[in-house]
Amino acid sequence: MELGLVGLGRMGGNMRDRLRAAGHTVIGYALDPETTDVNSLADMVKQLPQPRAVWVMVPAGEPTRSTITELAGLLSTGDIVIEGGNSRFTDDVEHAALLREHGIGYVDCGVSGGVWGRENGYGLMVGGSPEDVQRLTPIFDALRPEGAREDGFVHAGGVGAGHYAKMVHNGIEYGLMQAYAEGFELLAASDVVSDVPGVLKAWSKGTVVRSWLLDLLVDALDEDPELAGLTGYVEDSGEGRWTVEEAINNSVPAPVITAALFARFASRQEDSPAMRAVAALRQQFGGHAVRRVEPGDASGPPGTAS
Amino acid sequence: MELGLVGLGRMGGNMRDRLRAAGHTVIGYALDPETTDVNSLADMVKQLPQPRAVWVMVPAGEPTRSTITELAGLLSTGDIVIEGGNSRFTDDVEHAALLREHGIGYVDCGVSGGVWGRENGYGLMVGGSPEDVQRLTPIFDALRPEGAREDGFVHAGGVGAGHYAKMVHNGIEYGLMQAYAEGFELLAASDVVSDVPGVLKAWSKGTVVRSWLLDLLVDALDEDPELAGLTGYVEDSGEGRWTVEEAINNSVPAPVITAALFARFASRQEDSPAMRAVAALRQQFGGHAVRRVEPGDASGPPGTAS
Amino acid sequence: MELGLVGLGRMGGNMRDRLRAAGHTVIGYALDPETTDVNSLADMVKQLPQPRAVWVMVPAGEPTRSTITELAGLLSTGDIVIEGGNSRFTDDVEHAALLREHGIGYVDCGVSGGVWGRENGYGLMVGGSPEDVQRLTPIFDALRPEGAREDGFVHAGGVGAGHYAKMVHNGIEYGLMQAYAEGFELLAASDVVSDVPGVLKAWSKGTVVRSWLLDLLVDALDEDPELAGLTGYVEDSGEGRWTVEEAINNSVPAPVITAALFARFASRQEDSPAMRAVAALRQQFGGHAVRRVEPGDASGPPGTAS
Amino acid sequence: MELGLVGLGRMGGNMRDRLRAAGHTVIGYALDPETTDVNSLADMVKQLPQPRAVWVMVPAGEPTRSTITELAGLLSTGDIVIEGGNSRFTDDVEHAALLREHGIGYVDCGVSGGVWGRENGYGLMVGGSPEDVQRLTPIFDALRPEGAREDGFVHAGGVGAGHYAKMVHNGIEYGLMQAYAEGFELLAASDVVSDVPGVLKAWSKGTVVRSWLLDLLVDALDEDPELAGLTGYVEDSGEGRWTVEEAINNSVPAPVITAALFARFASRQEDSPAMRAVAALRQQFGGHAVRRVEPGDASGPPGTAS
Repeated sequence: MELGLVGLGRMGGNMRDRLRAAGHTVIGYALDPETTDVNSLADMVKQLPQPRAVWVMVPAGEPTRSTITELAGLLSTGDIVIEGGNSRFTDDVEHAALLREHGIGYVDCGVSGGVWGRENGYGLMVGGSPEDVQRLTPIFDALRPEGAREDGFVHAGGVGAGHYAKMVHNGIEYGLMQAYAEGFELLAASDVVSDVPGVLKAWSKGTVVRSWLLDLLVDALDEDPELAGLTGYVEDSGEGRWTVEEAINNSVPAPVITAALFARFASRQEDSPAMRAVAALRQQFGGHAVRRVEPGDASGPPGTAS
Repeated sequence: MELGLVGLGRMGGNMRDRLRAAGHTVIGYALDPETTDVNSLADMVKQLPQPRAVWVMVPAGEPTRSTITELAGLLSTGDIVIEGGNSRFTDDVEHAALLREHGIGYVDCGVSGGVWGRENGYGLMVGGSPEDVQRLTPIFDALRPEGAREDGFVHAGGVGAGHYAKMVHNGIEYGLMQAYAEGFELLAASDVVSDVPGVLKAWSKGTVVRSWLLDLLVDALDEDPELAGLTGYVEDSGEGRWTVEEAINNSVPAPVITAALFARFASRQEDSPAMRAVAALRQQFGGHAVRRVEPGDASGPPGTAS
Repeated sequence: MELGLVGLGRMGGNMRDRLRAAGHTVIGYALDPETTDVNSLADMVKQLPQPRAVWVMVPAGEPTRSTITELAGLLSTGDIVIEGGNSRFTDDVEHAALLREHGIGYVDCGVSGGVWGRENGYGLMVGGSPEDVQRLTPIFDALRPEGAREDGFVHAGGVGAGHYAKMVHNGIEYGLMQAYAEGFELLAASDVVSDVPGVLKAWSKGTVVRSWLLDLLVDALDEDPELAGLTGYVEDSGEGRWTVEEAINNSVPAPVITAALFARFASRQEDSPAMRAVAALRQQFGGHAVRRVEPGDASGPPGTAS
Repeated sequence: MELGLVGLGRMGGNMRDRLRAAGHTVIGYALDPETTDVNSLADMVKQLPQPRAVWVMVPAGEPTRSTITELAGLLSTGDIVIEGGNSRFTDDVEHAALLREHGIGYVDCGVSGGVWGRENGYGLMVGGSPEDVQRLTPIFDALRPEGAREDGFVHAGGVGAGHYAKMVHNGIEYGLMQAYAEGFELLAASDVVSDVPGVLKAWSKGTVVRSWLLDLLVDALDEDPELAGLTGYVEDSGEGRWTVEEAINNSVPAPVITAALFARFASRQEDSPAMRAVAALRQQFGGHAVRRVEPGDASGPPGTAS
């Protein structure tokens, strides 16, 4: 079928390739003149046969919102918009309401797979009405991995359910990554194991912890056995935060996912105000040595209590 | 080659099958007359050609210790013992020292793969001297999954390194399981997603969180979509505790693995003394309603503060 | 001075007593005919001299919002409303805007001290304009503990700052309570210490952990040395959740406060869906015993791995 | 009564002062010729009347062990040793056994109060036989704060119980400090509250979170309102680690105390190997920007996913 695709970055560009390889016609729009197929959103819409389908794949928040607002003015009754970025599920309800006023359908789709999706296919989590989702089946089938549909695609529920599932997926991902990371650090810190990268590699097949993330960590250690070329500074992009907020909203304990999120926050702090407060307390009650900011005033040996 | 195998339970029994299927001669010994090949450890030792190799696959702690002590009296210089159970790495040093007095070699081997190892092969993490490990290569090759050796086998270091690597493996496993579990609970608690098992199944291929553990959870949800037939009571068998203790010994922050361990502890408490203390405090300072143990004295509505 | 006071529950009733004891005139309004001084909000407003000051002390959320909306219709330019309940700081901005349309001032005041405040005085955290706060000084001075003003009162910032400070206060409170609770549970679980209540009592003076919360826990243990009459079921009333959400909004790691919040969530679960998922996984990969829901099908001994 | 006191550092020196002020005769021994009263342990023992009491107040571990070993050779049947340092409770059992061979009694005493104890008195947690503890009552009464004995002193149980109680005390202390620290950081990070030190000061009286530690933090903020002169580098001295290990040994969930411990570990890392692993994973699957170690190769803007 024919599809408009807004956003041709790391994700959108690869998706265009995969869809075309499957025989679909994709008209892509991006700001970058090197990669775009058309000069404007309006051009893209004009070239699509009715009823149109337009996939939005731009950063969450303002870029997505303004794209959808512009599409609301360009598309017509019976058309459909798919939001495939990392929007918060609460945004989907607003997007759908805005488009519904114009008779335009809305489907949200969480897409997982990173830069490998072009070759492996993407895991797709979709929210929307059964009719809207049904109509897009050929697109979803081209994007998902080969094999049984349900192994790489789910119609998770109404509008928002796709991004909700993707949000939880990413929350889990935070926890998985941190679990491997803690194990890696412990193996490296202890002197009992002499071949740390070899240990992780030996987990690749047969063990309980084998996974795609493990394979990626093995690849990274192949290139740099101590990850000495990196610094431990880790961004986050929202889904982990939202997962914790939803856990709180639903009174669900989520200590692992939350610990993984906080570890990222801490990784970005040059110095921790909280730990300065702890240092100040120890100095106050125990006369414990502290590290002062002033150069040349390095701490002596640690004190003898708590 | 020929191998004595002590312990023919869920793990040992399957390993005997896999080794025999690969053409090795295995003389198994277990207390159960239905499964044992010989009547005693002494019998087993007698039937093995020198230099002998004996694999111990019995529960960690006292059973392993007493088996190794008995073998020390039965085996001869040049023989070798492989400890394949879930011993703490610190035990390995003692085992090796005990056997060394008799000129007997010692190799520790962490084995991962559960009941699926018979078919898939087992991930093997090995500690010991290069000579001892080298001699046992045919056995390790039969037990590990097919394919490249380093994807399912590692000589991780000296005595103890195999069990150390397995300990960390299991610590990571705790974290991975808890991450999926928290995500599952959140999906189930919220009413946004209507097909929770379908969401997890759709992660099977293509997504960043795909893994063998995910596949198993999908299987479990296929049988029981809400896991309604189970109670959330989870044992632990030592490696998680040791991992946290080693993290502490090495000053390594391990919040995710520790949170997973504590969640298991809490799952086994009918009532939490700590939370009784928190309830008592809220009652003391705020006059907040508490739940008393006496029947018929149910708590009223929650108080209005903290 | 003269003050209208809406809400005469545990907190409001005690505050009326304390204010009157300090010589202020308080006209209290509550739904309960036994405790109210007037028959309606309108009555209360009528009896107050202009410019009026009305303190709202009703549950956060809808009750507070509707009270403030009604007051907006009854009060006049130059009057002032003090919101002393546990509102979220984001509500304050809305309350202030609503009243400002009518020329009515707004001050938010976090109040801490529980049922003991009547005697000890209350800790007060106030947000609002300098003029509004200044005008209410006599009231604040009567409510706060005796001694230096700054030990029990702070003008923390603009509208919302009082409730923000109170929110963080309660988040810290969660962490403090949980820290004592964990220590109590460990002392009780181990058999090394034979006099647990005596240990906590001995911390009352001289030690680093002495505090008012400790005193309260000592009192509770005096009445019930094992807290055997309580169940470990603990409500929360919002501020802990908001604190974690604000920590996330500001990228501040808050593992202790969050762990305390999650412990409350878990305390209210009869069975944990997450731990059912972990149990299911262990059964899948290791054939580990699980506890089934069916009566009579109790779990066997724990399995031997992970 | 007369007491030998070994170790005259921050704690021991102050204790000598407090004991002498209460009318006791203290013969102190330390390596420092400026502070010691005698030239050797043997000298000290010689000057004490029988039955002797000797209080050991030196760093835990080797210094304490060697002091006690030396005392075992110098003291006689009927004498008694008090171990007042921060020994692990498991060490007490060994110390007591060693001394018992010589007919010498042993009491372990956890001492809390820091540098303020000289003036305020010390909280004392004591383990040992009723006879031994009874004999030392005059010493304990002089060291503890004035007022009711049970508010600052407890005979917690047999040998080791004193240090066990002190260990848990310190574990709680970690949690309390971290709770205040997280709250401080959040207040400072947000821009809602404009007077952060003032807020903490206003908690000093009347509020639920008032405590001695809060008072100390207020003092620290008085001197340095943003704690800008300190770095957030925090040592730990063992008791927090032991508390977590004991929690694990007793299957007690201790998330708050553990989070506080891990925060200290993390505060001492220049860069986190675990977070390097997370960064490596994000780069592998998503092409996310990472921060490389090489100068001039600063990270670009964060990637757009997870």
